[in-house]
Amino acid sequence: MKLVRVGPRGAERPGVVAPDGRVLDLSSVTADIDGAFLAGDGLARARAALDAGELPPAVPHERIGAPIARPGKIVCIGLNYSDHAEETGATPPAEPVVFLKASDTMIGPDDEVLVPRRSVKTDYEVELAVVIGRTARYLAGPEDAAGVIAGYAIANDVSEREFQIERGGQWDKGKSCETFNPLGPWLVTADEIADPQALGMRLWVNGELRQDGDTKNQIFGVHHVIWYLSQFMVLEPGDVVNTGTPAGVAMGRGPDAYLRAGDVVELEIDGLGRQRQTVGQA
Amino acid sequence: MKLVRVGPRGAERPGVVAPDGRVLDLSSVTADIDGAFLAGDGLARARAALDAGELPPAVPHERIGAPIARPGKIVCIGLNYSDHAEETGATPPAEPVVFLKASDTMIGPDDEVLVPRRSVKTDYEVELAVVIGRTARYLAGPEDAAGVIAGYAIANDVSEREFQIERGGQWDKGKSCETFNPLGPWLVTADEIADPQALGMRLWVNGELRQDGDTKNQIFGVHHVIWYLSQFMVLEPGDVVNTGTPAGVAMGRGPDAYLRAGDVVELEIDGLGRQRQTVGQA
Repeated sequence: MKLVRVGPRGAERPGVVAPDGRVLDLSSVTADIDGAFLAGDGLARARAALDAGELPPAVPHERIGAPIARPGKIVCIGLNYSDHAEETGATPPAEPVVFLKASDTMIGPDDEVLVPRRSVKTDYEVELAVVIGRTARYLAGPEDAAGVIAGYAIANDVSEREFQIERGGQWDKGKSCETFNPLGPWLVTADEIADPQALGMRLWVNGELRQDGDTKNQIFGVHHVIWYLSQFMVLEPGDVVNTGTPAGVAMGRGPDAYLRAGDVVELEIDGLGRQRQTVGQA
Repeated sequence: MKLVRVGPRGAERPGVVAPDGRVLDLSSVTADIDGAFLAGDGLARARAALDAGELPPAVPHERIGAPIARPGKIVCIGLNYSDHAEETGATPPAEPVVFLKASDTMIGPDDEVLVPRRSVKTDYEVELAVVIGRTARYLAGPEDAAGVIAGYAIANDVSEREFQIERGGQWDKGKSCETFNPLGPWLVTADEIADPQALGMRLWVNGELRQDGDTKNQIFGVHHVIWYLSQFMVLEPGDVVNTGTPAGVAMGRGPDAYLRAGDVVELEIDGLGRQRQTVGQA
């Protein structure tokens, strides 16, 4: 099942994608797709309503928002692809590198991404995002992770490398600029993803393929990451985990590869759809 | 004016402290003390209701919650006191060190703090917390910061030092464990704090004075910090900024100084009240 939110920013309405590709209005089932919906067996209710064939079509041609309401937190994993670690010359980490990103950076999959003022190193990162469906606290092992995952989406973990690395020690400073986390277009429920470690992922800038990776190259797989995080923090329904990016980011390509106003960034992950952002200037 | 939230966790009701020290029920003015309340001139409405003398008393002896609803984000400043930087041997930073803390770590000022499982280095940090009242985006200078500050509170920026420093690179891993951000007891409006750079602050563990600092020793003052952050992220009404801790944390005192179940931590900052937490085990 593919859940979606459509409408103006801040006033999105919940929807579900029918087998024929049309978006159906899910407002009769829930006011929003958020943590409470996911925790309250909302996915089962949405599926029942979809199967019953009684959902009306959504307003066509509306903006697509992020597929979930603003999360409690966005947790990110750094240096989690062997090809990316190799490319940057970094030693592969012994355990997951964890940082946070402000939740208010989340925007729709096709919304404008803004280069921050005084930025010269705004970078892109295609990532498999995990949406948490049930509370995860001290999971016993990676085998318990599947039970807390609602589904998956594409994230662009936009990053300002000078702010992140050259301005005083912690990465968060370059990760939380406004518009820095496009998510979507859909929340694809976990049952549709046969193997989260076998998903091709690609990112283009102005039509040029920049990232061409596969989740099989994750150093720490999705289930390991969710189990691991649950030892350090409580993951709540509606939280988002960005699981890292493969090789090909601008940082590894040189100064000309960074994003500038007017650029077009496109991303796709197998089974999760496609994003397209134009870049503007803050 | 001192705003407060009282009642069971997750079901707190808004209140205001009357001049005689009683807590008055603010439910007739707002459903909660949150970003929307602060952005919508809630402080002026609360003051008018208080001055009119028509607010009923709150239920006495109830639990005190954090003085604001769960924020969109908690932003923290590291190594921001000259005495703390000296104590740790760290070079004072050239610009603020910034990291994030999961919003769901926020608890009431007297709630139990939990030592995480497998933790041996759970530490305390008394901090002046700033509560944002208006959106701050690319402020022109520190002189614009006062206009976006709703008020101040005490925060205990509880930290697990092994998770923070010895487990893979970014501090966030040791900052977002459950219960790691007691806040309160009050949100003291900015008009009551004549000079945020002249506030004594103290922290005791089991009655022993461990931190005895003053905001005059902040390397980057409150207004500088808020202006600075607004160049890298959008601060929204209801967001919290922990502005750093003075000397005296356990990390600088040796292994016996870390917190263990059964310990009692007390904190106070001039004009902002007092916290008291017992320590439990997760």
